[in-house]
Amino acid sequence: MAMISFSRRLRRTPYSEGVEAAGVKNYTIYNRMLLPTVFESPVADYRHLKENVQIWDVSVERQIEISGPDAGKLMQLLTPRDLSKIQSDQCYYVPIVDDAGGMLNDPVAIKLGENRWWISIADSDLLYWVKGIALGMKLNVTVHEPDVSPLAVQGPRSADLMARIFGDQVRDIRFFRYKRLSFNGRDMIVARSGYSKQGGFEIYVEGSEFGMPLWNALFEAGQDLNVRAGCPNLIERVEGGLLSYGNDMTLQNTPMECGLGKFCNSPDGVEHIGKEALQQALAQGPNKQIRAISIQGDPVLPNIQPWHLFQNNQPAGLITSAVWSPDFQTNVAIGMVDANFWNEGTELTVSTPDGERTAIVQKEFWA
Amino acid sequence: MAMISFSRRLRRTPYSEGVEAAGVKNYTIYNRMLLPTVFESPVADYRHLKENVQIWDVSVERQIEISGPDAGKLMQLLTPRDLSKIQSDQCYYVPIVDDAGGMLNDPVAIKLGENRWWISIADSDLLYWVKGIALGMKLNVTVHEPDVSPLAVQGPRSADLMARIFGDQVRDIRFFRYKRLSFNGRDMIVARSGYSKQGGFEIYVEGSEFGMPLWNALFEAGQDLNVRAGCPNLIERVEGGLLSYGNDMTLQNTPMECGLGKFCNSPDGVEHIGKEALQQALAQGPNKQIRAISIQGDPVLPNIQPWHLFQNNQPAGLITSAVWSPDFQTNVAIGMVDANFWNEGTELTVSTPDGERTAIVQKEFWA
Repeated sequence: MAMISFSRRLRRTPYSEGVEAAGVKNYTIYNRMLLPTVFESPVADYRHLKENVQIWDVSVERQIEISGPDAGKLMQLLTPRDLSKIQSDQCYYVPIVDDAGGMLNDPVAIKLGENRWWISIADSDLLYWVKGIALGMKLNVTVHEPDVSPLAVQGPRSADLMARIFGDQVRDIRFFRYKRLSFNGRDMIVARSGYSKQGGFEIYVEGSEFGMPLWNALFEAGQDLNVRAGCPNLIERVEGGLLSYGNDMTLQNTPMECGLGKFCNSPDGVEHIGKEALQQALAQGPNKQIRAISIQGDPVLPNIQPWHLFQNNQPAGLITSAVWSPDFQTNVAIGMVDANFWNEGTELTVSTPDGERTAIVQKEFWA
Repeated sequence: MAMISFSRRLRRTPYSEGVEAAGVKNYTIYNRMLLPTVFESPVADYRHLKENVQIWDVSVERQIEISGPDAGKLMQLLTPRDLSKIQSDQCYYVPIVDDAGGMLNDPVAIKLGENRWWISIADSDLLYWVKGIALGMKLNVTVHEPDVSPLAVQGPRSADLMARIFGDQVRDIRFFRYKRLSFNGRDMIVARSGYSKQGGFEIYVEGSEFGMPLWNALFEAGQDLNVRAGCPNLIERVEGGLLSYGNDMTLQNTPMECGLGKFCNSPDGVEHIGKEALQQALAQGPNKQIRAISIQGDPVLPNIQPWHLFQNNQPAGLITSAVWSPDFQTNVAIGMVDANFWNEGTELTVSTPDGERTAIVQKEFWA
């Protein structure tokens, strides 16, 4: 165990004051910004998330704003996903790849209008890629990081809490759609989305000065709903098979390897970066792919580097995220498994820091 | 205070085993990788660095390798610094800016040959920028992050220690020059450079498997030199005015504001990204610039966000790094000061979390 040395370079957020007052115990660093990982304990946080409602400081989901006449053209160049049907109240999960088809990021694109988009990023400086492409291709756009710090409201009681602040219209927001709703006189993008399987919303708070007032308003309104500060929870995330860029996939992986082939659907004639490489990858089929994997035996400590998978001493892939699940009473894991070993029920050996264990490929994730 | 949650995403290094065995107490995260910040204590580490020799795991200085027929052309496009005279045994500190002249990174470029360069980066995913520019401009290069993890040997006894491993020829390496020297049969780039003012070397260890053997060899060879594990030291860095990207400068700053105008010397007719913006900035002169600043009174705790500077309630700039210096018996600081207030001796007020203090603009850094 070791402490973090804080510095300006590891940016605080508009909610850091509230996060600290709520007793945050651990952080990770994500997009050079503080992201809470534990409040009470991983298991207590998990239990609470599944039964109540939590407020999450996910300011680390930085936005890249693309605006100008070529914004739509650039956005389509950036992703293999067909954007021809996205509406101006819609969010799309979009793989972003380089010219070799390697994953640069797996963000959510938000269409704000014909000539204005946000990209809500995972953990890499995608801003540099988008700016580089825009400049190199001489596109007529401006690209910058606006002062937007998302706040997530997650858990089964999230609609009830949100309705108290934004009105009952929040209940009509469909999954991966958004409405512009007002708080303290400021319109905010409120989307039905979030990095859990428990349901909820993400509020794209534009203007840091609105951060703590909204944080406080949500806590005051939710006292009888047992509202608490929370954060993306490793156990719940792995049970649900929510991938983490940098953990479960890197620049070395194609979308097909990550199980994101269905998002590589741009039709013939629509150009995007990496098209040729992905068509080739699609034609050949991946030779490894992400799988749900259970690890037998007592609870493991979460992995901090990949664990190697074997069968009869033959390499079979990597476990990239692993943790004990109290609800499913097994160690749940995400792994990148070689094609020869990826069928449901395949028994493998995983090498953990505490010795070898049996690992079994699952048909699907747990939740 | 809070703990770090470790994960695969926050990469370990080839030396992490040695760093942990040496009793690392604090880390920061730099380029999504672990960078030690404290072993014994900031002051004990500082004292030892100034008097002995330390081995630093600076794997976080990731390399971007550019190779191919257009490598030199791309490298010159990326920086305002004139590269026409750089030799194939030389390193250059190179500001990298976007088309608006904003700092994207302040790395060291290493010319390996006419068609092969490394860029040893500060804390941002410059790889994404370089790849984006290369692709957008259709340059004939390949760009990737190789398996290179620099190890720094710093302090007044560093040449003595290095000579025991690499031979007396290390003494002939001039500042920001390198030689290819052999360890365990592997040639390594050994440069006279490093992120301290105490003198020393950086070994660009290519191949993670050479990491711990070299680490161990240096420790064994240096026992009588009082060798110790160390890391960039905040006190020593601020005394010496070594800037930190993300702390003392960001994308919002031009090189002129950072005092790096002398590195913007590419002649007329040589194109680079941001040329027009920087020519304009140079013509107008900066309206704020980095200065050494002393803060009066008792020792301050190092800042974790910028502290505002004032004079008679008028904003005068920001303190971006601050810490107590035992050797100079004052709080030493780096700040970005507005033009009206940046002259030597100007008395300002700085607002710290513990109240207001007097801050005085210095002529130069302390060491």
